[in-house]
Amino acid sequence: MRREYRSASVVPAFSGEIAPQASTRVDRWAVGRIQQSLASAPLRFVLWDGFELPSKTGAPVATFLIRNRRALFGWLWDPALNFGEAYMSGAVEVYGDLVTMLEEVYRASDSTPRPWWLWQKSNDLHAARENVHHHYDLGNEFYRIWLDREMNYTCAYFPTRDYTLEDAQIAKMDLVCRKLRLKPGERVIEAGCGWGSLALFMAKRYGVSVRAFNISPEQIAYARQRATEEDLTDRVDFIEDDYRNIDGECDVFVSVGMLEHVGLADYRTLGGVIARVLTDRGRGFLHFIGRNKPAPLNPWIRKRIFPGAYPPTLREVFERVLEPQNLAVLDVENLRLHYGKTLEHWQQRFNDALPRVASMFDEMFVRAWQLYLAGSQAAFTTGSMQLFQVVFARGASNAIPWTRAD
Amino acid sequence: MRREYRSASVVPAFSGEIAPQASTRVDRWAVGRIQQSLASAPLRFVLWDGFELPSKTGAPVATFLIRNRRALFGWLWDPALNFGEAYMSGAVEVYGDLVTMLEEVYRASDSTPRPWWLWQKSNDLHAARENVHHHYDLGNEFYRIWLDREMNYTCAYFPTRDYTLEDAQIAKMDLVCRKLRLKPGERVIEAGCGWGSLALFMAKRYGVSVRAFNISPEQIAYARQRATEEDLTDRVDFIEDDYRNIDGECDVFVSVGMLEHVGLADYRTLGGVIARVLTDRGRGFLHFIGRNKPAPLNPWIRKRIFPGAYPPTLREVFERVLEPQNLAVLDVENLRLHYGKTLEHWQQRFNDALPRVASMFDEMFVRAWQLYLAGSQAAFTTGSMQLFQVVFARGASNAIPWTRAD
Repeated sequence: MRREYRSASVVPAFSGEIAPQASTRVDRWAVGRIQQSLASAPLRFVLWDGFELPSKTGAPVATFLIRNRRALFGWLWDPALNFGEAYMSGAVEVYGDLVTMLEEVYRASDSTPRPWWLWQKSNDLHAARENVHHHYDLGNEFYRIWLDREMNYTCAYFPTRDYTLEDAQIAKMDLVCRKLRLKPGERVIEAGCGWGSLALFMAKRYGVSVRAFNISPEQIAYARQRATEEDLTDRVDFIEDDYRNIDGECDVFVSVGMLEHVGLADYRTLGGVIARVLTDRGRGFLHFIGRNKPAPLNPWIRKRIFPGAYPPTLREVFERVLEPQNLAVLDVENLRLHYGKTLEHWQQRFNDALPRVASMFDEMFVRAWQLYLAGSQAAFTTGSMQLFQVVFARGASNAIPWTRAD
Repeated sequence: MRREYRSASVVPAFSGEIAPQASTRVDRWAVGRIQQSLASAPLRFVLWDGFELPSKTGAPVATFLIRNRRALFGWLWDPALNFGEAYMSGAVEVYGDLVTMLEEVYRASDSTPRPWWLWQKSNDLHAARENVHHHYDLGNEFYRIWLDREMNYTCAYFPTRDYTLEDAQIAKMDLVCRKLRLKPGERVIEAGCGWGSLALFMAKRYGVSVRAFNISPEQIAYARQRATEEDLTDRVDFIEDDYRNIDGECDVFVSVGMLEHVGLADYRTLGGVIARVLTDRGRGFLHFIGRNKPAPLNPWIRKRIFPGAYPPTLREVFERVLEPQNLAVLDVENLRLHYGKTLEHWQQRFNDALPRVASMFDEMFVRAWQLYLAGSQAAFTTGSMQLFQVVFARGASNAIPWTRAD
């Protein structure tokens, strides 16, 4: 199923495109250190003058061509940030499958201890808007190219591996509704509704009324148009506002793919919002990318793709969002392999439509997105990132499912 | 379904059994304070001389007869400990259904803020043995009276509410095995195996081999005898030893109802044991009584029933047991209503066999156990306590279920 991102996994002969300056002893030491830091991964390195470091652990899954000294030392100095920068600009080229290479890199990094500095500033209302604008307002046209028809930009659910992406996203939305036992007439509040697919689905298939919040103007505009077209404006209200400003009352609180953008510092605020709006017999649902142990998001992804984002551990969510409000965890499911599969589909579509994407954005953007999508797939398939779905309820509520049977 | 613990809910005329000394103004103030502390609960209070405080919130679900001043002020001073002490000794009598009364008390206490001091000493090897001996070595005969045939002293699983206790305990054991996807020939380590029911079940029905640990000599003796009788000694090894001494290697680590006895201070040790014995593709299972937010076990229960016990929140377990070992949470289920149902069955059997229990233990013991079982049921039905089942795996392992379908 995996695509070659380049036409061949064979490195071209280094004749025309090589810079004239020969690599020095220090350059060769530097590339040796990089290889060493990924010791267990079968990777081959080639410098700009053709100097080659073969894989130390069997047939290489990929070859890196490092085109200049700046990329080399940037990588050595801060690999988590600068590998992405160099790949994006083309200063580092990868021959071989990007996902396979990244999986090996993730596995190799897992066995070496990583000292992480956890620090994140609070995403105030303005910063939150900026962060979301950065990513989600790239133009609905762009996302339409490679997302499913319903524009779900979150992990799909594949009852079996051969589901299409379209069907798997429908299955995901249905899974969310079934986990929440939605009943006709119930009032749902959705925090972070993307292009509105889930809100519309819940109203259409489960007969609930939904107030859906989002701070991306492009997404809200798209969602409202869909509500009008599908004649659902009486039951779905799309509100362009921050989750912190959610008011009113609801039987069900649901948030799919927003928690990653909230930031640890505001989890208590989110918990307070949930406790404020949920009825005594209310249920809630959180779907988010997470970790097994705390670690910041890769700095390159934070810089180029998701400013202000942080994937939390379950413990961090329970500690700050649910426990202080005496909310009871009813059900948790980890769907990380489903996100790996989702990302495989997204990449297939993205790469199938490369000419179209290339007509909209420059080469750096395309390479950045290829790396981001491939890196995300690798993070889920190697267990570096998790996808958690959490169902909760008021602590004293007995309006909870007896079993999981449905 | 609920039993009356006394033949009638009508308080007898206070003639013969009342102490001659009249209650004073201070006594009446004290009982007023007690009632006030449970303001929202419809409860009636009667003092030894017949002085009566009617329910302030509708028809009373129960009447307390406080027989002497010591019980009165003990209750006022430290209700969490001394109500149990007074009930056990008979200095406080309850007319009405014990569970209903306790449910009201739990609900009333939930709405008043409780300042809790969290402090627990480590259960070293000796203390752990003493604590377990206190509860589990009361004699297998005693537990046989009111547990199911398989002697499961943990929450059962009722696919529908009308399951018998026998069937629900079988369903629980099967649920555990299915959640773990046990395959014939796999090696299981069980920490805290009770009377051996689950270990024998897994070996018999799923064809695995089990090494099961427990520090209760009576339980181990019973389990070994069953293994011999059922000709399973080649596949089930019952080992009288502490979980900290578990060695070897296993594909599956399972612990049902032990974590409550481990104590927060030793969670990291337990996590280390799991990480030491589990293979790279191994899975694990924890089943335990927990909380939505941290709070110590009721002090009377700790004193009289479960010394050294503590029901943790999921967060406390993840933080100390799983996260430090990079173990991935795959699945969590909250079965608190099933524990309520289980306790209803246990009480029915316990009370049906009262004459038999009374022939083995004194009246104080019987009353203490009635209060403990009723209080536990009320704690689960009101959401004061939770029952969590957690499935986990090595963080990097992809030998995890694709969906929950099975």
